[in-house]
Amino acid sequence: VSTDRLQALSDGVFAIAMTLLVLELPLPEHSEDLAHDLIEQWPFYAAYVVSFATLAIIWINHHALLGRVAHTDRTLMELNLFLLLFVALVPWPTGLIATYLRDGSQGAAAGVTYGIVLGLMSLAFALIWLWLARAEHLLHPDLKPRLSVAIRRSLVGPAAYASGALVSLVSAPLAFVLYASVAVFFAMSRRSAQ
Amino acid sequence: VSTDRLQALSDGVFAIAMTLLVLELPLPEHSEDLAHDLIEQWPFYAAYVVSFATLAIIWINHHALLGRVAHTDRTLMELNLFLLLFVALVPWPTGLIATYLRDGSQGAAAGVTYGIVLGLMSLAFALIWLWLARAEHLLHPDLKPRLSVAIRRSLVGPAAYASGALVSLVSAPLAFVLYASVAVFFAMSRRSAQ
Amino acid sequence: VSTDRLQALSDGVFAIAMTLLVLELPLPEHSEDLAHDLIEQWPFYAAYVVSFATLAIIWINHHALLGRVAHTDRTLMELNLFLLLFVALVPWPTGLIATYLRDGSQGAAAGVTYGIVLGLMSLAFALIWLWLARAEHLLHPDLKPRLSVAIRRSLVGPAAYASGALVSLVSAPLAFVLYASVAVFFAMSRRSAQ
Amino acid sequence: VSTDRLQALSDGVFAIAMTLLVLELPLPEHSEDLAHDLIEQWPFYAAYVVSFATLAIIWINHHALLGRVAHTDRTLMELNLFLLLFVALVPWPTGLIATYLRDGSQGAAAGVTYGIVLGLMSLAFALIWLWLARAEHLLHPDLKPRLSVAIRRSLVGPAAYASGALVSLVSAPLAFVLYASVAVFFAMSRRSAQ
Repeated sequence: VSTDRLQALSDGVFAIAMTLLVLELPLPEHSEDLAHDLIEQWPFYAAYVVSFATLAIIWINHHALLGRVAHTDRTLMELNLFLLLFVALVPWPTGLIATYLRDGSQGAAAGVTYGIVLGLMSLAFALIWLWLARAEHLLHPDLKPRLSVAIRRSLVGPAAYASGALVSLVSAPLAFVLYASVAVFFAMSRRSAQ
Repeated sequence: VSTDRLQALSDGVFAIAMTLLVLELPLPEHSEDLAHDLIEQWPFYAAYVVSFATLAIIWINHHALLGRVAHTDRTLMELNLFLLLFVALVPWPTGLIATYLRDGSQGAAAGVTYGIVLGLMSLAFALIWLWLARAEHLLHPDLKPRLSVAIRRSLVGPAAYASGALVSLVSAPLAFVLYASVAVFFAMSRRSAQ
Repeated sequence: VSTDRLQALSDGVFAIAMTLLVLELPLPEHSEDLAHDLIEQWPFYAAYVVSFATLAIIWINHHALLGRVAHTDRTLMELNLFLLLFVALVPWPTGLIATYLRDGSQGAAAGVTYGIVLGLMSLAFALIWLWLARAEHLLHPDLKPRLSVAIRRSLVGPAAYASGALVSLVSAPLAFVLYASVAVFFAMSRRSAQ
Repeated sequence: VSTDRLQALSDGVFAIAMTLLVLELPLPEHSEDLAHDLIEQWPFYAAYVVSFATLAIIWINHHALLGRVAHTDRTLMELNLFLLLFVALVPWPTGLIATYLRDGSQGAAAGVTYGIVLGLMSLAFALIWLWLARAEHLLHPDLKPRLSVAIRRSLVGPAAYASGALVSLVSAPLAFVLYASVAVFFAMSRRSAQ
């Protein structure tokens, strides 16, 4: 499988996962005070924005990554499909954390689940960089020097999501703010890297 | 990220959002008079057509826009992802306005929500044009003269959707007619521009 | 908008509509005799196969059509988006006809709805051919002679779906057999045309 | 229809089917012990992973297959669409087997259904290889020698899924382990083939 086709499948899965997020938004039925009910479900809008932004940033980084790859091998492709397994899964913990964000007793389990799924997604991303460090012949020659920076940067994700899962045990809303910050951090750090 | 890949992701999100609209159409269950029940839910068909047509026109304009861009920068890409955030969201207010269109007391909130989501979508579109006016080096040289026309035209959308949100407070059906007119206006104005 | 991008959006909408059909298949909950319940819902499998095959054939014909087009104009693109509006809609009447196929009194409305949606889809297809007959400069020069055959062939669809809608008033299952035959006819007629 | 466009439609259907699997994951509502409820529904996570991995491997093999094809004919395209009919269907038996995996009396019907759908999918794949063996002119010349290996390998799928359907009659969990093994077998056998 060529890099091109891998990119096409990845683009497809990213675009679909980003668009399926909308199905998590509840539509109040037989509402007697629709304005109130719509405002009441604000955690769903917040979760939609955070998950959409996170997927958008992972997509940008994924393209930057594949742009540095001159050849693919079997392991690279399997790691990429492992990444897509979690990308496609994102709408599910998004709906879960939105549903239970304000539930003091059950919020913890929802926050931990969000942290696990997105943590595994960013771990898969880090594993791709770690594999490229071992299989350097897959890279464009002039891009090798920046490899160690990319690896260090990619390890921030798993660490942050693991911390978020721990914070969830104390406070789901606090963990959610942390998850939102990861997206902001990556958006900012890329900006400064340019 | 190249213009090509940005276009591929955008095409994906537009195609999926347009096709997910169908999931908002209710399927009457255990109906005792199916013909009547199907005709009864006409606001869902009207909302489907208006949202589909609106997304189709935004997609056409989006291609015309990217066709004028010779290079992309970070801001252009982020504004584009900001646009896609609202494109992917469209099925949700579509189901909402269809559900509450004939509900005198709750229609206002549904109409305002539709206006806000589609207004923010067209605002994101206008912001892309405004950014291109500042970052003129991103444009194909021979297309710069028509820039001010494009900007003026792109500001019609946010203004119209804001008006529609206001009109919703008085009458949701009237606001819906206004939303439908925006699609017709843009389809017509492009025709005359050719 | 170039033929290429129109093709990319069309491919996306076709692929998504074909895959969303699966969401119409019911999953029996708390079943006490699952084998029986699964066999009992056979109209859903039949409707899935017929709608999938119909969309697949329209997709094949759509590519054959765009392959003959050397340039696009505004009308051609709008007619194509009009076609996609009904392509994206197909999962809805598919679920409807499957739900009411064996309901003697309500099957008529479901069968008529299926015929209307797919009839309008094939009418949109025929309108594209009719437009190409008027705007011959859009066609590859060596393909013009076969145009009248293509037009005649494309008019079979609207006629057959209109007949099916009428037959539905008498018998929904009979109409469904007719709808299935349209797909078989087009698959066969293409074969013999090669 | 060119191989390119067939590949684009196939990529789309694979990406969408893989991403729609997420809609089968239940979101516990009004849970009083969310951690427990989430762990309780582990068959859905297992089924998600097995079906995602299976589709990913079929996608890889599908690309390897189309990469060997120099020309397409009508039969090859129809067989490919027959394959996609079952690819798009996979989310449905995935939800079914997850729902009934631990149900001693109804698990059999769910396991048989999973085996039938995925068995027909892999049969469609085998039929494509068998057709290429008859229509050798469609192949790249230097790839013909490995054809008999590919055919033998492609027949493992239908045989394994048929066995799984039979095993389901005795034990659905055991059959599920067998279905998971098919994915592992194909992942491994490709590795050793390189």
